[in-house]
Amino acid sequence: MKSLEPLFNPRSIVLVGASHTGLKLGGVVLKNLLRLRPKVRVFPVNPKFRRLMGVRSYATIDEIWGDEIPKSKNDLAIIIRPAPETPGILEELKGRVKCAIIVSAGFAEAGRMDLQEAVQRIAREGGIRLVGPNCMGVHNSSNGLDTFILTAERLSRPHPGGVAIVTQSGAVLSLIFEAFSLSQPPVGSSITAHYGNAADIDESDIFEYLEGDDNTKAVISYIESVRDGRRFIRRARALARRKPLLILKAGKAAAGQAAAFSHTGRLAGSYRVFKSVLAQFGLAEAADFEDLVDGARALALQKPLKGNRVLILTNGGGAGVLASDECARQGFYEAGMPPRKLARFKKIFPPFYVPGNPFDLTAQVKDEDYRTVLEGLKEDYDGFIIIALSAVRGITEGLGLVLADFKRRSGKPMVFHTGRDAVGQKLSRTLEEAGIPALNSPERAVRALRKLLKKD
Amino acid sequence: MKSLEPLFNPRSIVLVGASHTGLKLGGVVLKNLLRLRPKVRVFPVNPKFRRLMGVRSYATIDEIWGDEIPKSKNDLAIIIRPAPETPGILEELKGRVKCAIIVSAGFAEAGRMDLQEAVQRIAREGGIRLVGPNCMGVHNSSNGLDTFILTAERLSRPHPGGVAIVTQSGAVLSLIFEAFSLSQPPVGSSITAHYGNAADIDESDIFEYLEGDDNTKAVISYIESVRDGRRFIRRARALARRKPLLILKAGKAAAGQAAAFSHTGRLAGSYRVFKSVLAQFGLAEAADFEDLVDGARALALQKPLKGNRVLILTNGGGAGVLASDECARQGFYEAGMPPRKLARFKKIFPPFYVPGNPFDLTAQVKDEDYRTVLEGLKEDYDGFIIIALSAVRGITEGLGLVLADFKRRSGKPMVFHTGRDAVGQKLSRTLEEAGIPALNSPERAVRALRKLLKKD
Repeated sequence: MKSLEPLFNPRSIVLVGASHTGLKLGGVVLKNLLRLRPKVRVFPVNPKFRRLMGVRSYATIDEIWGDEIPKSKNDLAIIIRPAPETPGILEELKGRVKCAIIVSAGFAEAGRMDLQEAVQRIAREGGIRLVGPNCMGVHNSSNGLDTFILTAERLSRPHPGGVAIVTQSGAVLSLIFEAFSLSQPPVGSSITAHYGNAADIDESDIFEYLEGDDNTKAVISYIESVRDGRRFIRRARALARRKPLLILKAGKAAAGQAAAFSHTGRLAGSYRVFKSVLAQFGLAEAADFEDLVDGARALALQKPLKGNRVLILTNGGGAGVLASDECARQGFYEAGMPPRKLARFKKIFPPFYVPGNPFDLTAQVKDEDYRTVLEGLKEDYDGFIIIALSAVRGITEGLGLVLADFKRRSGKPMVFHTGRDAVGQKLSRTLEEAGIPALNSPERAVRALRKLLKKD
Repeated sequence: MKSLEPLFNPRSIVLVGASHTGLKLGGVVLKNLLRLRPKVRVFPVNPKFRRLMGVRSYATIDEIWGDEIPKSKNDLAIIIRPAPETPGILEELKGRVKCAIIVSAGFAEAGRMDLQEAVQRIAREGGIRLVGPNCMGVHNSSNGLDTFILTAERLSRPHPGGVAIVTQSGAVLSLIFEAFSLSQPPVGSSITAHYGNAADIDESDIFEYLEGDDNTKAVISYIESVRDGRRFIRRARALARRKPLLILKAGKAAAGQAAAFSHTGRLAGSYRVFKSVLAQFGLAEAADFEDLVDGARALALQKPLKGNRVLILTNGGGAGVLASDECARQGFYEAGMPPRKLARFKKIFPPFYVPGNPFDLTAQVKDEDYRTVLEGLKEDYDGFIIIALSAVRGITEGLGLVLADFKRRSGKPMVFHTGRDAVGQKLSRTLEEAGIPALNSPERAVRALRKLLKKD
C-alpha cells in the first residue's frame, strides 16, 4: 500500500484506550474524533464502558468486527495504552486496519528496543502502516482530523491554510502551532504530522504524500535524524520541485545528537554531512526555530524570488544598516541603483533623504514616498525589504494600501518590518492580508525573504 | 569640563526652535521639557511668540540673558532649526551654555561636512560640549529629562530601570524602546543617549559617564563607527569592569558600511578588526537586534555566570535538542550529570523520563519535578535553561513559585522559555518578577544566558 490516504483522510477510526473524560488523554482524542461524525465512523475501545461520550463503546477489538468473515478493513487505529500492551493490541488489529498511530511512549527512546521491534514486525506482517510510537499523530485542517492528545484550550490548532508541518518532535509541533496562532494574522496549516520514533512511517513517506496534496502550498519540517539518507534526499528533492520545502535540522552538535537519541532513539548523524547534502541538492535550511516559522510565513504568502537583487527601503538609517548586514550574511546581492534613477530621486526628494541601497527616507518620510521609490525601481530589483518604523508621524495606516497596491500590481516578493504600536499593528494586518509578511526585526525580515530564493 | 552632568541632569534648558503645537517637533520637545518644572528652568526661543504652552517665550537668545554681565551659564541648549542656521545659533550660545544638543539633520550625513565642521569649531571655541548633530539626544528616566522629537503616543518611553542605552541610531533607539515596552514585564531604562553624527560627544564619553551613574546596572550599545579606536577600547573596558556592557556592531559588511556612512557620515571600519578587538578585551557582542534586547533583559535581571556549566531542563524533547544545539554554537559546556545523581533520578522518576543533559521531563511532567531536579543539581551547574511548554496539563501557574523560590535561595542565573497561552503568560510574568527572564524560543533563551558569561 503506497498511499497514506487512510492515515490523512480516514473514513473509519478505531480508538484503543478511549476514555470517558477529557481529563484523560484517551478522552481528549475521542472528543476530537467524534466531531468527524457522521462522515467518519468512530469505534472507541474500553473494557469498562458500554458507552463513551454518548456513542457505543467496544469492550474488545474483536467485538468491533463481531462474527464478520472475511473481516472488512477500517482505515485507521489510534492506540493510547501503555507500551508493553501495544504488541498484543497490534496483533489483534492485523488484517483489520490499514494504518495505526501508536501514541504511547516507552519504546526505543526509553531503551525498550525490544518493544519497538515487536510492533515494527507485527505491523509489517499485518500490512499495517505505522505512525510512531511516541508521537501525537496527525492533524488535517481540511477534514478536521485531530489525533493530538493536547487539548485545544492548551494548544490552539491553526486554521485551514497552505503550510504542511512534518515534525519528529511533538514539543516543536506545539511551538509551531503556537507561533502560527500568534502570528498577525495567524498562519494556516494544511496537514501536520508528528511521527516520533518513526518505526515505519517517517519524513520521507510524508513528503511523498504531500507532493500530491493540493491543500499544501509549502512544507516545513523539523528533523533530528533520518534512517535512509538516499531516500530522504530523493523524496525531499521531489517535493521541493513541486512546492517550497524548508528544513530545520536539529541535533547538530555532539551534545544535541545525544539529546536527539534519547528523545526518539535514532542517531542524528553528522550535521556537517547533512548540511552539505542539503546545500548540494538545493534544499533550503532554517537556522533556528524562529527562522523556520518566519520562513513558513514568507513561503505561505509569496512566490519565489526570480533573482537575488534586493532593495532595502527604510525610514530609519540604523534599521537599514542592520538589514544590510543581514543581506550580506544571507548572500543577497544588494544591487546598486541605476545612476539615472539615483539622480532623479535626488532631484525630487528633500536633500536629507538618502537615495541608494539601503534607501533611507528618514524620519521625515510620507507614506507616498514609498510608492514613489517602489514604482521607480520595480524593474531594477527582484525583491523588496520594506522597513517603516511607525514611531514617526509620517507613517500612517494609508501606507498599508500603498504597499498592498504595489504588491498586487508588481507581483514582486516583499517582506515588511514595522513597529508594534497601534499604527504598526494595523499596518501588519493589512499587509499580511495582501500577502506581505510582517517580521519582528529588520534582520528577521531579510532572513524570511531569503527563504524565497530557490537555490537550484 | 569632564562631566556630562549638565547634559543628563540639567538645571536649566534653552530650547531654540520651540513651537506652540505638539504637531511640530519643537512643540513635542517643549511639552516634554515643561514637565520638568519647577525643578528645571526652561527658556523657549521663538521669534513669533511671547508665550508658548503657557510659559514665557523669548524672541532671541540674547533676550534670555538680557543685560546680565557677566552672563551666567545655563546647563543645556537644544537646537531644532534647519542645519544652515545652526552655526549662527551656536555662536550666540558661546559662553552661555555648558552643553548643546543639535537635533537637526543635514550635516555630514547629507554631504555637508562644512556645516558639521563649523558647529564643531564653534562648540570647541565656546567650551560647549555637543551632542549630535542629527540626533534625538537624551532620555533620563530618573529625572524625567526627555529631548526626543517622537511623541509618547507613537513611541512609549521605558519606565525607570537599570539598563542604559547608548546608540548611534535613532531608528534602533525606537526599536529598543518598543521592545522594552512590549516585554512581559517591561524592561526599565536608566539613561538613553542617541548621539547621531558624534561631532563631539560619542559612545566613549557616554560610557565614561555611565561608569559612575548609580542608576545604571547594565549598558547596551548600538555602534556603527568609532572615531578613536584606542579610546573606545579604554572606555569600554573601564565600563565593563564596573557593569555589564553589551555591544551590537552594525555596518559589518561592505554594503552595510556604505549605508552606515550615508547614515551618520562616519566610516564604519573593518568589522573583522572590530570583532577581534572586542574578543581580545573580553567585551560582549550581540549577534543581531533581538540578541541585543534579549541580552539586556538577562543582564538587567541577573548576576554574571560563575562558570560555563549549564543544565537544560525541559518537558519537551525537541525543545531540549534545539537548546542543546544552541549551547554548542554559543560555546556553553553542557556538563554531564554525576553518575550517582543520574542513578538516583532514574530511581525516583517514571521510566520514560530521560535524566541527563538535556534533562527531559516529557509531557507527563508535574511542576514539582522541576524542583526535584533543580534541588538535586544546584551545586553541579553554574546556570539553568528552563523550558516548560505550557501546552501540557502538568504545567500550571504553580511552577512560577517553584522556580522563583529556587532562584531566590540558590542565586543561580536562570533563563526560561514557555508558551504564550494564558498559563505561559502568567508564568512569564511571575518569573520575570523573580528575576528570571522569559525568552521567545529555546535558542533565544540560551543566547540570553550566554550574555551573563564574562569573557575575561
